[in-house]
Amino acid sequence: MQPQGVKVNTISLMLGHPDPTTLLTPEFQAAVGRAMASPRVALSYGAEPGNVALIEYLTGKINREQGLALKADQMMIVAGSTHAVDMVARLYTRQGESVVVESPTYADTLHIFRDHGVELHGVPMDDGGMIVTEFEATLKRLAVGGNPAKVFYTIPTFHNPTGRTLAEDRRREIVRLAREYGVTIVEDDVYRDLAYDAPAPVSFFALAEGIDVLQIGSFSKTLAPGLRLGWVIGSADAIAGFVGCGTTQMGGGASPLSAQIVAEYAAPGDWERHVDGLRELYQMRRDTLLGALERFMPDGVSWTMPKGGFFVWVTLPPTVYGKDVKRRAAERGVALAAGEGYFIHAADGAHNLRLTYSFAPPEDIVRAVGILGEVIRELA
Amino acid sequence: MQPQGVKVNTISLMLGHPDPTTLLTPEFQAAVGRAMASPRVALSYGAEPGNVALIEYLTGKINREQGLALKADQMMIVAGSTHAVDMVARLYTRQGESVVVESPTYADTLHIFRDHGVELHGVPMDDGGMIVTEFEATLKRLAVGGNPAKVFYTIPTFHNPTGRTLAEDRRREIVRLAREYGVTIVEDDVYRDLAYDAPAPVSFFALAEGIDVLQIGSFSKTLAPGLRLGWVIGSADAIAGFVGCGTTQMGGGASPLSAQIVAEYAAPGDWERHVDGLRELYQMRRDTLLGALERFMPDGVSWTMPKGGFFVWVTLPPTVYGKDVKRRAAERGVALAAGEGYFIHAADGAHNLRLTYSFAPPEDIVRAVGILGEVIRELA
Repeated sequence: MQPQGVKVNTISLMLGHPDPTTLLTPEFQAAVGRAMASPRVALSYGAEPGNVALIEYLTGKINREQGLALKADQMMIVAGSTHAVDMVARLYTRQGESVVVESPTYADTLHIFRDHGVELHGVPMDDGGMIVTEFEATLKRLAVGGNPAKVFYTIPTFHNPTGRTLAEDRRREIVRLAREYGVTIVEDDVYRDLAYDAPAPVSFFALAEGIDVLQIGSFSKTLAPGLRLGWVIGSADAIAGFVGCGTTQMGGGASPLSAQIVAEYAAPGDWERHVDGLRELYQMRRDTLLGALERFMPDGVSWTMPKGGFFVWVTLPPTVYGKDVKRRAAERGVALAAGEGYFIHAADGAHNLRLTYSFAPPEDIVRAVGILGEVIRELA
Repeated sequence: MQPQGVKVNTISLMLGHPDPTTLLTPEFQAAVGRAMASPRVALSYGAEPGNVALIEYLTGKINREQGLALKADQMMIVAGSTHAVDMVARLYTRQGESVVVESPTYADTLHIFRDHGVELHGVPMDDGGMIVTEFEATLKRLAVGGNPAKVFYTIPTFHNPTGRTLAEDRRREIVRLAREYGVTIVEDDVYRDLAYDAPAPVSFFALAEGIDVLQIGSFSKTLAPGLRLGWVIGSADAIAGFVGCGTTQMGGGASPLSAQIVAEYAAPGDWERHVDGLRELYQMRRDTLLGALERFMPDGVSWTMPKGGFFVWVTLPPTVYGKDVKRRAAERGVALAAGEGYFIHAADGAHNLRLTYSFAPPEDIVRAVGILGEVIRELA
């Protein structure tokens, strides 16, 4: 089965997925076998907060890496970051309330918040990430207007779709403003472990000492999306709220089978070694994509320089439309995402593309960018 | 790890779980191995409607067994029935709208609907299942009151918590009334395959020829809850609605790893053979529980006679409270569910207990019911 949206022989610069050749390793296969030795954990309803061993492992890792002192009751295992975003939308907002996001932001998050009927407000970015003065102006405007922001959803580190990373001084300012305006920060941090040039900056969660911040992590980018497995950290009260949801109570802990497999896989250090390998792999892929853009893009095209994650954000000349590039590129066997889907107002992304370097092998990346260069030249 | 709520040495007549000794079989273990041979299906994001092979298998089985002609686009694989109920609550109701349920009904479904802020209305049952005249009166009252019922959520077959099965003539009447009042029937049918005495009655879905009915199935009762895997069938339009949810779009198909394992397991007939074995096992367990109730219950206690599923519903004398029985039984090492949680108005279940026979071995069931008899005698 081909991943959706990818035709046979099409090169995908569209999918924000791990390289499919990395999904199954001998160590992972061995962990699957070990998980089967505990059928009452792997195959039964799990405790609502999730697999106990996995929570112990993950809180330990996060405490070490982010300088935190999380206790077990500050984490819930979730069925991918989707599950966490959906619970946030349900528990932290009511219909018609205001949610602030970066502009652009992750398309499917916009979709989930829209399903919950909230009002979305976007704050523009520059190369240093979201612009703090614009953030402050938005919070002020919403507060004055009587529908103050409840949630700020952000992907501060190796942002999807732009690949940008929010500068550390901006993070401090944003924490201060969020406190002032009573906004919960939801830090979607699923790319944190994929830092290629330097360690990822300090997290919102660490800066705010966990107060009014929820941080979401996932195994979808650094292990396998098919596991449907991630986590969310927050105050013990916040986690108790998620655990008390009807869906949690009915379904039990998230993905017990996957969670036990990953608990077995992570315990001896196999996952962290795997991530080390992915960092090397994707760093090279990123360099390949950036090199190819340098070589093949016509004048008037610019792009971001991601220090981690999966994405490069391309800005086209004002006469060239992302949708046209997407369509023509598809005809020539290159899949990519046009910018429009990542904005609250689609037109704001009319001249942008999102390219990924995680999925396609390097020679395909170079070939695809060559085709893309031709397409843009034709349209310019 | 003990399942939540069960202390060491406690006998559980509380958990509606499969017997834990049935969870892992050699055939299942072999299917896990085969699934690993398709990492791009098992470990990647899946197509949004779910695993293609599993949909093909399940629609074939359901068409054969329920006399239907489902096409692939009429099914979505879900992360357990929880996922389906949650999507129904989201897409078929808005805050404050009316949902009708049997009284009593599955406690966690009440919880999910409450999370979505709907108004719940219960319709009483007798031994033939929900009482149709009461259903009609409720629909009429809600329509006249200006907040007509949008959804009727029902567990018609081997009902949780009562073990009752809705009579076939009542099903026909209910379909007629639901049409008349424009109500979508949500048929939670997760116990259908666990029919011990005779085949399960015709489904709502079959009676209504799939029009305005959603039917939910699950692998949690007949294979392993830890898979987080189930399905929902409906019209192609209804399924497209679920597939179009933000959560589906973001997370991809439900539980790809579990789905591929089960697709491999079910294809050669191993799951259906497993269910044959479960039917024999649980039929004996049911007979053990009913025999023990006959032997140990004092006068004034009555109970239902389930023809399938996991549950027996006990009605205590009017002077004996389920909560007291639950507490005293727990002190003597017997876990069970008091009736209150299964009602919109807890007091309606003050004199009821739900007992399960799926989880505990037969000698434990007999011992537990003996203890229960003593407790009730003391409290009477």
